[in-house]
Amino acid sequence: MLQQANTVRILGLDPGLRHTGWGLIESSGQRIRYLGSGVINPNVKQESLALRLAELFEKLLEIVKTCQPDEAVVEEVFVNKNPGSTLKLGMARGVVLLVPAHCDVSVFEYTANQVKKSVVGAGHADKTQVIHMVRRLLPATPVEIKPDAADALAVALCHAHQRMLNQYSALLQSAG
Amino acid sequence: MLQQANTVRILGLDPGLRHTGWGLIESSGQRIRYLGSGVINPNVKQESLALRLAELFEKLLEIVKTCQPDEAVVEEVFVNKNPGSTLKLGMARGVVLLVPAHCDVSVFEYTANQVKKSVVGAGHADKTQVIHMVRRLLPATPVEIKPDAADALAVALCHAHQRMLNQYSALLQSAG
Repeated sequence: MLQQANTVRILGLDPGLRHTGWGLIESSGQRIRYLGSGVINPNVKQESLALRLAELFEKLLEIVKTCQPDEAVVEEVFVNKNPGSTLKLGMARGVVLLVPAHCDVSVFEYTANQVKKSVVGAGHADKTQVIHMVRRLLPATPVEIKPDAADALAVALCHAHQRMLNQYSALLQSAG
Repeated sequence: MLQQANTVRILGLDPGLRHTGWGLIESSGQRIRYLGSGVINPNVKQESLALRLAELFEKLLEIVKTCQPDEAVVEEVFVNKNPGSTLKLGMARGVVLLVPAHCDVSVFEYTANQVKKSVVGAGHADKTQVIHMVRRLLPATPVEIKPDAADALAVALCHAHQRMLNQYSALLQSAG
């Protein structure tokens, strides 16, 4: 039954003003496969914050248009101890949440702990463990994947797992 | 000499996730006049943050396209004591900075103190004083102007004053 479920393309996004990671997967029933990933690095020499945000917007818009995801997923961020950093993170996050919504793609959010529990099995995993598990769960992931792209794939995987659980629950309920 | 300076349309913006104020003025030599103002209120009943940000983006994009400003100005925000609020303010601010830059309009920033000093003459003026001075400096401002729109006009006025000072300094220098 589950294998007949719709195929969905899920775009995971890990926002940052310096590096925004993205990772695209396809979830079809119980099968999940890697489709692509990368990192957007707005020109850091560009002093104007507005121009860096516009660059992030335009590059992400191109990625969303090329990837044609059915759903997008963004990790809920921890607020930084430094209020200035929190404000900057908020700006990048605002742009990253807006782009898929602007393209009529539904946006989901998970906490970092939910993502790590779903992918690594523990809420406090380090970057190496995340990359290791992403590559195990998605064997086509490039060997040289960047941490930000791996984080984006992890959040996409978390959402794919959650969808499977939801479908399974719905199935059990319909079976009475 | 100064009266022959170029006419510029300046769009002031006061970012917020609930209310984003905008105010358009025209600065021509030493004359400044009110052209328009308003407040964007993304649907607060809309629970999805992504959809609210997309709504702010789309409405602001429409305003920038309609107003055709030469320059845009945004007030630099204070970071809030509450990190969650700082993050939300950052998201709205990110969208507000990005839209004019995306439309190839230069974006300038001033601190709240600079704006109040420029418009009211004191760094710590309250909202009533700001509205009062905005209406004195721009007589065509509607009587029922909302505080967020008045703040947006104030930041636009601050930039217009700064431009005049810069032009005046340049003139003095060129006069030897």
